[in-house]
Amino acid sequence: MDIMSRLRAQHIETPSWAYGNSGTRFKVFAQQGVPRDPYEKLADAAQVHAFTGVAPTVALHIPWDRVDDYAELSAHARELGIGIGAINSNVFQDDDYMLGSVTHPDPRVRRKATDHLLECVDIMDATGSDTLKLWFSDGLNYPGQDDIRARQDRLAEALAEVYGRLGEGQRFLLEYKLFEPAFYVTDVPDWGTAYAHCVKLGPKAQVVVDTGHHAPGTNIEFIVAFLLREGKLGGFDFNSRFYADDDLMVGAADPFQLFRIMCEVVGGGGLDGGVAFMLDQCHNIEPKIPGQIRSVMNVQEATAKALLVDREALAAAQRSGDVLGANAVLMDAYNTDVRPLLAELRAGMGLEADPMAAYARSGYFEKVAAERVGGTQAGWGA
Amino acid sequence: MDIMSRLRAQHIETPSWAYGNSGTRFKVFAQQGVPRDPYEKLADAAQVHAFTGVAPTVALHIPWDRVDDYAELSAHARELGIGIGAINSNVFQDDDYMLGSVTHPDPRVRRKATDHLLECVDIMDATGSDTLKLWFSDGLNYPGQDDIRARQDRLAEALAEVYGRLGEGQRFLLEYKLFEPAFYVTDVPDWGTAYAHCVKLGPKAQVVVDTGHHAPGTNIEFIVAFLLREGKLGGFDFNSRFYADDDLMVGAADPFQLFRIMCEVVGGGGLDGGVAFMLDQCHNIEPKIPGQIRSVMNVQEATAKALLVDREALAAAQRSGDVLGANAVLMDAYNTDVRPLLAELRAGMGLEADPMAAYARSGYFEKVAAERVGGTQAGWGA
Amino acid sequence: MDIMSRLRAQHIETPSWAYGNSGTRFKVFAQQGVPRDPYEKLADAAQVHAFTGVAPTVALHIPWDRVDDYAELSAHARELGIGIGAINSNVFQDDDYMLGSVTHPDPRVRRKATDHLLECVDIMDATGSDTLKLWFSDGLNYPGQDDIRARQDRLAEALAEVYGRLGEGQRFLLEYKLFEPAFYVTDVPDWGTAYAHCVKLGPKAQVVVDTGHHAPGTNIEFIVAFLLREGKLGGFDFNSRFYADDDLMVGAADPFQLFRIMCEVVGGGGLDGGVAFMLDQCHNIEPKIPGQIRSVMNVQEATAKALLVDREALAAAQRSGDVLGANAVLMDAYNTDVRPLLAELRAGMGLEADPMAAYARSGYFEKVAAERVGGTQAGWGA
Amino acid sequence: MDIMSRLRAQHIETPSWAYGNSGTRFKVFAQQGVPRDPYEKLADAAQVHAFTGVAPTVALHIPWDRVDDYAELSAHARELGIGIGAINSNVFQDDDYMLGSVTHPDPRVRRKATDHLLECVDIMDATGSDTLKLWFSDGLNYPGQDDIRARQDRLAEALAEVYGRLGEGQRFLLEYKLFEPAFYVTDVPDWGTAYAHCVKLGPKAQVVVDTGHHAPGTNIEFIVAFLLREGKLGGFDFNSRFYADDDLMVGAADPFQLFRIMCEVVGGGGLDGGVAFMLDQCHNIEPKIPGQIRSVMNVQEATAKALLVDREALAAAQRSGDVLGANAVLMDAYNTDVRPLLAELRAGMGLEADPMAAYARSGYFEKVAAERVGGTQAGWGA
Repeated sequence: MDIMSRLRAQHIETPSWAYGNSGTRFKVFAQQGVPRDPYEKLADAAQVHAFTGVAPTVALHIPWDRVDDYAELSAHARELGIGIGAINSNVFQDDDYMLGSVTHPDPRVRRKATDHLLECVDIMDATGSDTLKLWFSDGLNYPGQDDIRARQDRLAEALAEVYGRLGEGQRFLLEYKLFEPAFYVTDVPDWGTAYAHCVKLGPKAQVVVDTGHHAPGTNIEFIVAFLLREGKLGGFDFNSRFYADDDLMVGAADPFQLFRIMCEVVGGGGLDGGVAFMLDQCHNIEPKIPGQIRSVMNVQEATAKALLVDREALAAAQRSGDVLGANAVLMDAYNTDVRPLLAELRAGMGLEADPMAAYARSGYFEKVAAERVGGTQAGWGA
Repeated sequence: MDIMSRLRAQHIETPSWAYGNSGTRFKVFAQQGVPRDPYEKLADAAQVHAFTGVAPTVALHIPWDRVDDYAELSAHARELGIGIGAINSNVFQDDDYMLGSVTHPDPRVRRKATDHLLECVDIMDATGSDTLKLWFSDGLNYPGQDDIRARQDRLAEALAEVYGRLGEGQRFLLEYKLFEPAFYVTDVPDWGTAYAHCVKLGPKAQVVVDTGHHAPGTNIEFIVAFLLREGKLGGFDFNSRFYADDDLMVGAADPFQLFRIMCEVVGGGGLDGGVAFMLDQCHNIEPKIPGQIRSVMNVQEATAKALLVDREALAAAQRSGDVLGANAVLMDAYNTDVRPLLAELRAGMGLEADPMAAYARSGYFEKVAAERVGGTQAGWGA
Repeated sequence: MDIMSRLRAQHIETPSWAYGNSGTRFKVFAQQGVPRDPYEKLADAAQVHAFTGVAPTVALHIPWDRVDDYAELSAHARELGIGIGAINSNVFQDDDYMLGSVTHPDPRVRRKATDHLLECVDIMDATGSDTLKLWFSDGLNYPGQDDIRARQDRLAEALAEVYGRLGEGQRFLLEYKLFEPAFYVTDVPDWGTAYAHCVKLGPKAQVVVDTGHHAPGTNIEFIVAFLLREGKLGGFDFNSRFYADDDLMVGAADPFQLFRIMCEVVGGGGLDGGVAFMLDQCHNIEPKIPGQIRSVMNVQEATAKALLVDREALAAAQRSGDVLGANAVLMDAYNTDVRPLLAELRAGMGLEADPMAAYARSGYFEKVAAERVGGTQAGWGA
Repeated sequence: MDIMSRLRAQHIETPSWAYGNSGTRFKVFAQQGVPRDPYEKLADAAQVHAFTGVAPTVALHIPWDRVDDYAELSAHARELGIGIGAINSNVFQDDDYMLGSVTHPDPRVRRKATDHLLECVDIMDATGSDTLKLWFSDGLNYPGQDDIRARQDRLAEALAEVYGRLGEGQRFLLEYKLFEPAFYVTDVPDWGTAYAHCVKLGPKAQVVVDTGHHAPGTNIEFIVAFLLREGKLGGFDFNSRFYADDDLMVGAADPFQLFRIMCEVVGGGGLDGGVAFMLDQCHNIEPKIPGQIRSVMNVQEATAKALLVDREALAAAQRSGDVLGANAVLMDAYNTDVRPLLAELRAGMGLEADPMAAYARSGYFEKVAAERVGGTQAGWGA
């Protein structure tokens, strides 16, 4: 398949929560025109797809996106030209979860948490989603607070139960994160932990790489290459960071890192299906929809550059131990300005060359800012 | 002065906000018996002093602790056996401050922010507080978002105006922080920036070291020693962290680091006045008052160990280049169990030996948990 | 088994290379009395055991400790009252290894490297050592320099060959390291990579945790607990660090972390056999033998404190969700001064209470400083 | 001045030590054709200038580049078409400096170290160099090893003496570094420390920013902007890093960071003179001269992109609080492929478009590889 076809085939999923307000523990700044329910979130996501052509699905977050009738929600999405993507569970925003969810010392809380995960599989059935994303905020703030190993036993037990509930063609992705909201131990802190659990569970369990969830200095593309080699890379939660889990727009902090990641994806067969490219970001101070459009474009540009790498020349230089030559092959692709190529791609898809400008001209923002008055704005937890 | 007298003379200030609910961007877990107004916060702070004997003041946070009559609040504190400590400004929780406060590109917002800082000096006058603590969340999330240098000019201008408003015997402490809530640039990111501004302003401007506000690997005791040498160490915001600004109990993550810091404080004359020992913590999952008591005890234990260092033996080993010998002198003090010594200190002050147990037995928690029902619990922003 | 018996049973292995000169890329400072051959290294190691009673084996490093007759070397060790511990391979100090050893793009270099590993197993046979330690400096300095995934294939191939050569009762420990000497990719950068390879190989392959080989902020005790749960913790390379792989004396930088690690070891059954406690340090500026004695004592003190934890009280507090109570149980043990207990242990073993002072009085240093003149001092690479 | 003229005027200084062998503490890999004396290093540096046109000076390192007749060395440089740049002092490679140089507890060692610095000023006089670069490896490995504050006193004293010796038109640049080779305290660990000393000394003392010398997460462009605002940015030691002070080719690890730094340089007037652009790198595994050529090109490309930023559009977006718009202005410049522009620049200077290819074709490497046989290859310390 040629570069244009591969770029056209790449799907980048946007998350419903990116359209709502978000912030830090210090302040959530409210923005105009923010959606007030899952239906309005879908409408915003449809805009991103309308202008980029490569964002045809939207991830849901339960219970934030809980509705009475998921079939109706799915139908609504289809009418908007998009589909339902991954179902994201949430076992961190109930008072019961202060000391953990599936790893909590109290079996009652564990039961409640696991039941929520099972409910998410029900929602997958109802919406046709094939992917469950599991992130656990479980952990400890203080040494001694709970038994690190016992918590792994409890985690394994819950994962096994959920795994057993997965139907044909369904999978779950286990997310890892170094820290936050737990500040001493996180129960799934790194890819090794997620990987070890997934290997024991079987092929329907895979690891998801959130690009903001690593210790400083971690080489993310190494993890990507390793997991692809093992058949255990389920997908990405894309965002970028300078310090911690900053959840900035993907590609904004280190576009070269994003390129290197996409190079491993391309080289490891990750563009050929099975790897979900999802955004997971917080637009705390920038407008939401343009923030998503820009992010989709950033992933696309990095992918285009990765596809431009002269793989034969690269392999030849690597074989001969030509350090500078091999590096130069990579940098040649990176230094290429791929914006004209992507403009051409969009033209071929009947889209405008500059999605940001096209969205700005569309009047959508002015429309929703006027319409969406009253009610409760969506936000983390809303 | 002997060790006992110096430990008795050390004052550790607790912050009013530590008694309210706090959390992360993911969730604020509510606790029982949490105060609903500044008066109830003072009552809780008085408990910490009652059981430790070394926490005689409480820091206020404006506008969280705004009252109509500050003289009455001060009198109330005195009745409870404590006093008002530092006044903490807040220019981060208003929608106007989304892109900055005193460094905001819009002069209207800068004026509003600076006016708030001036109001804080008014409150110092009204409460008799001699210390204003300035922390700015100002910064950027994205490269290019604003002009880094121009923001320094605006910062300098605001600081100069506030400095000019300080009365006799008043000072401000400028706080620095690497990141959060800003995720690309923070306008006062490190001690060097705070120091440079304070040097230009004059003797009433000093730096405050928050122990959780540094890049990974930063040697905090070096900064403490350096600032003391320059006469620019105004005080501490104590807490501890494993990863970022975790705001855990001081001494919980790295008690040896706390000891090393206190060694520099003792060696540099920081116990002799002028350096404020303040706590700045979030008890997200542990009860608030015991969390403060434990923290006060942790600072006290580290101070006691630092006072036990055999300074003559240390200097002799250092002079002779005896690396292991000098290190051993320090470790001898650190490895000493100072709890008996502190129990003796408390006995001499008419206090119980174990403040944690004594508080637990006091029935205070049960009392406030029963009484403080209804109303709005205090929390960050409340 | 009671605490005293368990402390007496713990064996801490010292490395032959710690007795030679070491340094940084900037300078290796030469010290007096440094050994000039493996026999003199053994003699120094025997001193550490003579004064501590818990360091009965010494690790060798091949080719640094290559001799003609390993049986004679073993016999010499026995005469000195010690034994040969782990065999450490070295595939990083030959010009051929500039771009890698077992992961090198050139099959000739891979063959050479693997042959060296096989030779190390021969030396295990000859010395009776049951443990091979594998550390690979292999990696990349520049993006694109070589294929990350292909290098994993080559690594797996070499490991499988060495694994197949292991005899009854022999094992290898695979070491991971974030970076240095490679500065972009390290082929075994983290515990997850080492673990994944070891799981595939089988029970004779285990992971070794070097406490200085992690990204900033990594929770090492979590890794220890996890690997123990999986039966994959083969041992430790103990040292301490403030920044990178500083190779300082274990317990010198963060004694509380060492205690937490030993708590997981104790709780996870790691004291009951199978986990090797090895030192891997560089005494760049302090004298070597006292540096090793101090380090052995630091591990012993941390172990003693970990054994003092009231496990029943801890479990009860954990079960009831008493965050501060559980933390207090742990801290009670940590805050205990265990030096009297260890003095008593040594008395019961016929040793002097203070190994550092006893060694200093022994005159050994003066003796070797006078004797070991001429020849080539041992050092990294010598 | 237009972009082309500014790019033509920019001078990038290469360091004499980059042409010699270098490595890590684990191994220095020898390369072919490496120079054996300062004269051969100058010859190699002249090649870099010949093919790039913007590297007209070479920095010396004393004592590595000590010669009997500096006037003759300068004349030799002139004949080669280049000049002598900064003089770099070295007070870290003598056995006397094990515990420090100018901060050593022993006054004899301090005297020796300071005398070396004064000798470097003599060499400046003899060579016509106007810049002295001061880097101190001084620090501590263990807590307690020496007195942190007393070492600052000693540092201040030595700096004052050297400052007093500077002639008309001469300056020194004080370098800071977080760690290595010292692993607990470094006596000049951060820009704040260097700045504070320089401010007290006067206008002939400035700070030099080595891009590899910061804690993880440090925002270097902030420091650059701050120091330019204060008139205290003396220059750069360019290189790049993923982890610590990796000393890789500048722009290889994070080209976007290099661009952001150059944006602040351009915006702060740093291209208009006074700021020295120096490389400080180790080509451990890649050939030296091409490594330098590539690095010079990387700085040039980043500078070109920084000059392409539409400053008016940027300022307008910043003023209006348009976060995404302002970021987009910056990214437009970054995403531009400036290689054609630089090829044009070189054509205008009579150079070939691709310096890497031109050098490879020149036969210089084959020539020196054949000629430079025998003697001692230059390297760190040689």
